[in-house]
Amino acid sequence: MIGVYGADGFIGRHLVRRLIERGLPVRAVSRRFDRDFADEVEDLADLVAADLSQPLAMASSLQDVSTVVQLMSSSSPGLKNDHAVADITENVVPHVEFLQNCLRAGVKRYIFLSSGGTVYGPGAPVPTPETAPTNPISSHGLTKLFVEKYIQMHGHVDGLEYIILRVANPFGPGQTFRKGQGLVPAIIERWQKGQPVRIFGDGAARRDYIFISDVIDAIEAAIAVRGTPRHILNIGSGETRSVNEVVEAIESAGGITMAREYVAARSTDVDVACLDISQARAVLGWAPRIPFTEAMALTVAQALDPSQRYAAK
Amino acid sequence: MIGVYGADGFIGRHLVRRLIERGLPVRAVSRRFDRDFADEVEDLADLVAADLSQPLAMASSLQDVSTVVQLMSSSSPGLKNDHAVADITENVVPHVEFLQNCLRAGVKRYIFLSSGGTVYGPGAPVPTPETAPTNPISSHGLTKLFVEKYIQMHGHVDGLEYIILRVANPFGPGQTFRKGQGLVPAIIERWQKGQPVRIFGDGAARRDYIFISDVIDAIEAAIAVRGTPRHILNIGSGETRSVNEVVEAIESAGGITMAREYVAARSTDVDVACLDISQARAVLGWAPRIPFTEAMALTVAQALDPSQRYAAK
Repeated sequence: MIGVYGADGFIGRHLVRRLIERGLPVRAVSRRFDRDFADEVEDLADLVAADLSQPLAMASSLQDVSTVVQLMSSSSPGLKNDHAVADITENVVPHVEFLQNCLRAGVKRYIFLSSGGTVYGPGAPVPTPETAPTNPISSHGLTKLFVEKYIQMHGHVDGLEYIILRVANPFGPGQTFRKGQGLVPAIIERWQKGQPVRIFGDGAARRDYIFISDVIDAIEAAIAVRGTPRHILNIGSGETRSVNEVVEAIESAGGITMAREYVAARSTDVDVACLDISQARAVLGWAPRIPFTEAMALTVAQALDPSQRYAAK
Repeated sequence: MIGVYGADGFIGRHLVRRLIERGLPVRAVSRRFDRDFADEVEDLADLVAADLSQPLAMASSLQDVSTVVQLMSSSSPGLKNDHAVADITENVVPHVEFLQNCLRAGVKRYIFLSSGGTVYGPGAPVPTPETAPTNPISSHGLTKLFVEKYIQMHGHVDGLEYIILRVANPFGPGQTFRKGQGLVPAIIERWQKGQPVRIFGDGAARRDYIFISDVIDAIEAAIAVRGTPRHILNIGSGETRSVNEVVEAIESAGGITMAREYVAARSTDVDVACLDISQARAVLGWAPRIPFTEAMALTVAQALDPSQRYAAK
């Protein structure tokens, strides 16, 4: 049984659908489930309501789970660093407890979605290999890094198999707007409200944007890879785009023009983030498949007509 | 004013004495003070009772402090990893709060004693440079690493000066026996109780043992170094000795022979730990001064006659 933790989020929903399509047994765990999504999958997967603040419910959800895919997170890349203490107590501590419960429950493999955009910090080489120093300058990046370190410790001491996926900036259909998280849905949100697009700094900051189905491919490969893997792997598109280029791509896909509003850059932003994905290619036999223009067209099309649900094939 | 946090511990007492001797203004902060030590220094330093579990007392102790030397820690290298959650909530969280309060109070420089023996983890190159990967396999090592990462974040984001000293295994007069911490006092404790020395594994594990006065030299240099330092520096002797060699050195210094009792190695021990100290030499103009044999003679002499107090000159 594959346990998907954070099953009702952007990545979680696409992953649950993909695993069901593959005929794999899935336990979908989430703090709460959207009615439509629950209706869609409840006959095809075990649905369990639990989140990191409920250690007992989390622990009991582990029965018969051999592989955990951990997508849950209560911190967010855009939040200020004065959330540092809450990020530790609400994210790191329950993660550490959950890991200990995974070992007790006999979980063999732990797949954790970390943050390729924040764990390295400023001054990382471009593109950034997994061996680069990890000096996050945001509380979000620190909490992701700490969870990685506990997973590695249990890999070494207790033999846990793990694949830590340091994912760049994912986007795609089904990604809803959340403050401080996800440039693409933030732009689309402004567009749909008829507001000018808000750009931090001059819009030249370059990031690595990866389409959701490419992320799902990587997770699926991490579930399936043979042997006793213990890896940290970057998952990105291998390309960078500036904020301005992303805005232009959305304008082009939607056949629109948006006004710009420039605001001060956030101190926790890094200027360029691009991941070296050669390790993931080698270890997982994975590669990004969907070109950026096509990915953006799919994303915009679904935003314009949410009834047309996109399935990440 | 220099704030010494953890002032009544092994390193703290030696440091407070040294700073007083140099005529520097010292605030000595500790959970509690031993009567004799308090009597010795109370006319020469501000004594404040506070510890990490008392955030308000810790914060108010910061008035007029420009340099913090943080020696406090409630975790210990030898404890099992099932203390992981407590190590986070009792060590990392209050450290993070304290750091935030340091910034609010106008502290300019933060000197933190980290753990050269546990932050790197297995597989580190020997000798280990500061740039080596940090993958601790003990909860103690993880908590030290996390505090380092928060300090670095505040250095980058808030301009805090910092010097993180990754200290090898310190020993010397005044180090009292504590379970799971410090090989030298553990051996002397067994000797003084007439018990056989207890050796984990075969006694071949090699560590880097550094004499207390060399550690104090390094902290003093970190306090004094000019500019706006932001460094992580290994502090060690530059040499390794096996457990068996340490036992023999104590026997030789004490003119005794001890029986051996061999017990199973701890899973969190690393086989060889030796720090590359070239960065500290370059940045601090520091070097270890006391040869191992002399250091052990001083340590054993004081253990045999505790009334002869050793001052780390």
